[in-house]
Amino acid sequence: MFRKLVSFHEAKQILKRNFSPKPVGLEKVFLSKAHNRILAKDILSPIDVPPFDRSTVDGYAVKAADTFGADEDHPITLKLCGHVTIGVPPSVVVEKETTVETVTGAPLPKGADAVVMLEYVIRRGNSVSMHRPVSKGENVMKAGSDIEKEKTVLKKGQTLSSREIGVLAALGLTQVEVYKRPKVAILSTGEEIVEPGKPLPPVKIYDINAHTLSAAVLECGGEPINLGIILDNINQLKAALKKALDLADIVVTSGGVSVGPKDIVPEVLDTLGAPGIIVCGIAVKPGKPTTIAMINEKLVFSLPGHPTSSLLMFYLIVRPILFQMTGIHEKAPLTLKATAATKMFPARGRRTFVMVILTYNKSGKLLASPVSLGLSGAITTLAKADGFVEIEEKKQFIDAGEEVMVYLFKPKNWLESV
Amino acid sequence: MFRKLVSFHEAKQILKRNFSPKPVGLEKVFLSKAHNRILAKDILSPIDVPPFDRSTVDGYAVKAADTFGADEDHPITLKLCGHVTIGVPPSVVVEKETTVETVTGAPLPKGADAVVMLEYVIRRGNSVSMHRPVSKGENVMKAGSDIEKEKTVLKKGQTLSSREIGVLAALGLTQVEVYKRPKVAILSTGEEIVEPGKPLPPVKIYDINAHTLSAAVLECGGEPINLGIILDNINQLKAALKKALDLADIVVTSGGVSVGPKDIVPEVLDTLGAPGIIVCGIAVKPGKPTTIAMINEKLVFSLPGHPTSSLLMFYLIVRPILFQMTGIHEKAPLTLKATAATKMFPARGRRTFVMVILTYNKSGKLLASPVSLGLSGAITTLAKADGFVEIEEKKQFIDAGEEVMVYLFKPKNWLESV
Repeated sequence: MFRKLVSFHEAKQILKRNFSPKPVGLEKVFLSKAHNRILAKDILSPIDVPPFDRSTVDGYAVKAADTFGADEDHPITLKLCGHVTIGVPPSVVVEKETTVETVTGAPLPKGADAVVMLEYVIRRGNSVSMHRPVSKGENVMKAGSDIEKEKTVLKKGQTLSSREIGVLAALGLTQVEVYKRPKVAILSTGEEIVEPGKPLPPVKIYDINAHTLSAAVLECGGEPINLGIILDNINQLKAALKKALDLADIVVTSGGVSVGPKDIVPEVLDTLGAPGIIVCGIAVKPGKPTTIAMINEKLVFSLPGHPTSSLLMFYLIVRPILFQMTGIHEKAPLTLKATAATKMFPARGRRTFVMVILTYNKSGKLLASPVSLGLSGAITTLAKADGFVEIEEKKQFIDAGEEVMVYLFKPKNWLESV
Repeated sequence: MFRKLVSFHEAKQILKRNFSPKPVGLEKVFLSKAHNRILAKDILSPIDVPPFDRSTVDGYAVKAADTFGADEDHPITLKLCGHVTIGVPPSVVVEKETTVETVTGAPLPKGADAVVMLEYVIRRGNSVSMHRPVSKGENVMKAGSDIEKEKTVLKKGQTLSSREIGVLAALGLTQVEVYKRPKVAILSTGEEIVEPGKPLPPVKIYDINAHTLSAAVLECGGEPINLGIILDNINQLKAALKKALDLADIVVTSGGVSVGPKDIVPEVLDTLGAPGIIVCGIAVKPGKPTTIAMINEKLVFSLPGHPTSSLLMFYLIVRPILFQMTGIHEKAPLTLKATAATKMFPARGRRTFVMVILTYNKSGKLLASPVSLGLSGAITTLAKADGFVEIEEKKQFIDAGEEVMVYLFKPKNWLESV
C-alpha cells in the first residue's frame, strides 16, 4: 500500500473538498425525550404568551387614572365591585371609580389597566382606599409580552436544554422536530484483541477502542453501532465494512492501519467504492497511520489501534464532522490558556499533540504538565489527561513558562481562578 | 399559613441540619450504558495492562547489549532466527547475536529486551544489519506499565466518559457498578395551567414548569417522574403528594406557594409527616415563596409558579442536593468573571439574582447585561440568559463597570478570549 503523508491542514482540506457534512434527517420527539437534542426547524409561536393580560401581584385591579394623586395621607377610595380569580374568565368589568379584587396570575378584568398591590390598600367592606397611585400597565403582564404570536422564539441548530424545553411547553407543543442522530458504525480489527468479558489468552489484550469510540460518539450526539472485532481476514473485513456502510452514516475503524504486514484495512478500503482512500497517513503525532476513505458518499475513518491515538484522532478529525452532521450550532472546542510546566518537543515535521494535566502552582498560576510522553498506547495516559496542547509543525519546541492553549476534554471549573 | 422568611444562607443551613444527601443505591450497568453514569466503587485492576511485554514499533527484537556501538557507518549484523506476530505466543527465543522480526503490538519473544525500528535496519536474507544501538527496554511496553494489577485505577464518584470507559474495557470488564439515579417526582399545581397539547381555554396558560424541571433533573443525572397537573384541591393534592413520596427519592412541586387564598401547598405539606415544613419563604428575589418540607426523611421542595423563579430556585437549592444524591464528585458550578454592563439593584433585604446575557464589547471586554429585569414570570427571560449574577443582601448595588461573577447555565466557550 503506497503511503504519502499529508499535513494535518491538508487532511482537513481534502476532507472539506470531498464531503460536506450535513444532518441526516429529521424526526419528531416528545418533549420528555427532547433534552439535549438539536432543533431542526425554527419555532414560530402559534400563540401569545401569556395569551391574556395578567396581574403580576395580589391586589386590586383599577383604571390607573382613578388613582392619580393618591398618597399615604390622601388615599383615594374606590368601590369594590367584585373579584377575579386564577383560571376563571372574569365576570365583572372595572368601571370608572370602581375596583376588582385580584390575585397574582389572574386575568385582568375588562376596563382595568393596572393593579394596586395589596400592601398599599386598606379595605373596609366595599370601600377600598388606595394609598399610592399606579401608572397604566403597572403590575400587569400584557398578552404576548413574553412571547409574541408568529415571532421566531427558537432557532434551528439550538440544543434543547431545560430552558428551551420550557419555551416549547409555553407554546403548548408536546412534540418537536429535531435532527436525527447520525449513526456511526464502529469496528475493531486486530488478531490480538479480545472482547471484554471473555477470558484473556496469553499475548492478547482486551478491546478498548470499540468502547471508547462508542462513548465518544455519544458525547457528540451520535448513535454508535458497535459491530465488534473483525479478524485480519480480507473477506471478513470486506463483509464487515459493507455491512457498516449499509447500516451507518459514517464508519470508524480502529487498528490495522500501521505499516505491518497484516494492516489490511487500507487494502480493503480501496476496493469498496469510489473514490476510495482520500487520505493515507497524516503527519501528526500520535495518529500518523490515520486513513480516510470516501465510499459511495460515506466517510470511513480508519484510526490507529493505540487507544490514546485513536481517541485523539477521533477528537481532532471525526468529531468536528460528526458535530456538523448532528446539526449542532456550537462547535468551538473548550479551550483555556495555561503555562507550560516543562519544555515540550514536537516530533520532527509532524503536528504534535501533548496530553497534559492542569494544576495550580503555589502562586496560583495554572500549569499544563505533559502526561508520560511517549506512551501513546497507554489508555491511562488519556484517562489522566485534562486536555492536550498542540505544537505546530514549524515550531521547534514549547519552552517551560510559555503560554499555551489547552484543549479541554470536558468542561471543568478552571474558570473560577482565571 | 404563618410565614417567616429566612435568609438564603439560613435556608441552606436548615437544609444541612435536616438532611444529609447521599446516593440512593447501586446498580450494575453494561459499558454501553455506562456513559455519564457515576462510579459507585473504586476500581482495582484484576490484571496487568498490557498483560505481557509488547513491541511498540515494527522492527527487530534484540538483546540490547548486542547492538551497542552500532552506527550508520559501522552496523552490527545479527542472525535472523524467526518472527513473531500479533496475538500469537512466540515460538522463538532471541539468543545472543540473533534477532527476531516483529511488528507493533506483538509480544516480545523470550530473550529479547528491546526492539530496533525497521528504519534503522538493512536486511539481506537472514542477515540483519543494525545501524543504530538501542538501550534496554527501548521500543518495548512492559507488562503492567499502563495499568498495574491490584492498583486502583478509577475512584468512586468519577463520571464515566469515553476515557474512563476505555479503562474499564482495558481491564476486561463488561459491567460496572454505578450509583442509581435519584428519582425526582414533579408536580404542577394551579387552576390556571393546562397540559401542553390540549386546547387552551381563555385565561389559562400552558404548564411550563413540569417540563423545565424534568429536563433540569436530567441535567443533574436524576430520573424525573412527571406526575402532571394537580388542581387546587386539598384532597387531590394530598393524594398526589403521598404518591410522589412513595415513588420518588425527592419531590419538587411548582405553584401554589405564594400568598393568594388558593395557595394550599404549604397547608397540605404540614399534614403529611414529621417534621413537615422546615423553610417557609426565603429572602431572595426571585423565588421568595419557596417552601421546603421534610416528610419521613424525604425532602419536598415547593417552588414558585413563575417559570424563571422556579427553575432558578431549582438551580440554587435543589441541584446541589441532587448532585450529592447522584454521588457525583464535581459540584462546583461553572463561573466566569465579567464586567457589569449597567448598574444592577438588589431587592431590599433579599439576595437578588439577575439574569444576564454575556457579550463582548469593541475592546474585547466581556460584558454581563441584565435580561429584562422585572419580568421574572417570563420563560423567555430564562431562555435568553447565559447565566446569572448574585447580589448579596448587604450590597447596595452593583455599579456599571464593576467586576461580577457570572454563574453559567451551561459551558460556553467564553474562555477562549479570557
